[in-house]
Amino acid sequence: MKALKERIKKDGEAIGTEVVKVDGFLNHQIDVQFMSQLGKEFRRRFADLKIDKILTVEASGIAIACMTAPWFGYPPVVFAKKTKPNTMTDEFYGAEARSFTKGTVSIIRVSKKYLHQGDRILILDDFLAHGEAATAMTQLVSQAGAEVAGIGAVIEKGFQGGGDRLRKAGFRLESLAIIEKIEKGKIRFV
Amino acid sequence: MKALKERIKKDGEAIGTEVVKVDGFLNHQIDVQFMSQLGKEFRRRFADLKIDKILTVEASGIAIACMTAPWFGYPPVVFAKKTKPNTMTDEFYGAEARSFTKGTVSIIRVSKKYLHQGDRILILDDFLAHGEAATAMTQLVSQAGAEVAGIGAVIEKGFQGGGDRLRKAGFRLESLAIIEKIEKGKIRFV
Repeated sequence: MKALKERIKKDGEAIGTEVVKVDGFLNHQIDVQFMSQLGKEFRRRFADLKIDKILTVEASGIAIACMTAPWFGYPPVVFAKKTKPNTMTDEFYGAEARSFTKGTVSIIRVSKKYLHQGDRILILDDFLAHGEAATAMTQLVSQAGAEVAGIGAVIEKGFQGGGDRLRKAGFRLESLAIIEKIEKGKIRFV
Repeated sequence: MKALKERIKKDGEAIGTEVVKVDGFLNHQIDVQFMSQLGKEFRRRFADLKIDKILTVEASGIAIACMTAPWFGYPPVVFAKKTKPNTMTDEFYGAEARSFTKGTVSIIRVSKKYLHQGDRILILDDFLAHGEAATAMTQLVSQAGAEVAGIGAVIEKGFQGGGDRLRKAGFRLESLAIIEKIEKGKIRFV
């Protein structure tokens, strides 16, 4: 998506060879109007998709999931939790996800009340890098007996391989911008 | 707000005398269309307010902040972070916030890049209980030399006193539903 690549070039910051910082519009400060345009692009790419729910993971997936939902006719958005609040008294589905950015491993959880057998799920996230969070979300969906209709990422870091692994596993994945390489402070797209 | 009180009565779950669980539409599964109606109500209540930014805190504040932003002409939404990711290389404002639900104390942080002197800030959150998160956000705003134009909460637990403390401190606070008491599984509104 051209507008996204331009925005990343304009506002993104390359750190070393692994990290792209886009906290000016995506995951600290949020440009909500721009998020809505990204949501519209997900709808265009998944035009034929019938979905019952959008699944994402806290925290920065929530914005893109909320701004995409209207384009799909307002399906419920469910966000997986990274910690278990003491109000989570129901049974839950759980899967392990590593965060390379934060250097942590966490169990992401969704209450069994919010994923059901047969649900067609669109998984959305802001970043797709090694694919740990997305893979964990596919496991939650699978535990519920639901179906992954598609996976959407705003930014895929192609060189970290998560996207290709998901495609090889047979998932339909759409990334709005795929970064091929980060080199000498420059971000190069596929 | 009548529709919200009805929704809380219909989908909310009273746990003991302190906790109202509304994870069916507000903070685990999100009814995005309903959030947008809540956002419209914030605009109505703060009709005269000129704001430059919306400030919230991850994770469950993000949805209401994003769905309120369109009604204010799409100001940037900034969400304070509860952990310091290793991509947060900038200087930041920080304030302590306790979570009574999670039983934790955390420092919430906003990069100095996203709060500026003179900014008029609308603080939004899903819950206002003891007021710890909202108070911490007012401190971030104050550290930046910015101004709290208003504070909005979807649900205020009036009996926990945070709202009254903020009002007494001179803040303009709007809560869309104020719970007076939770008793024998019943939620009573002010």
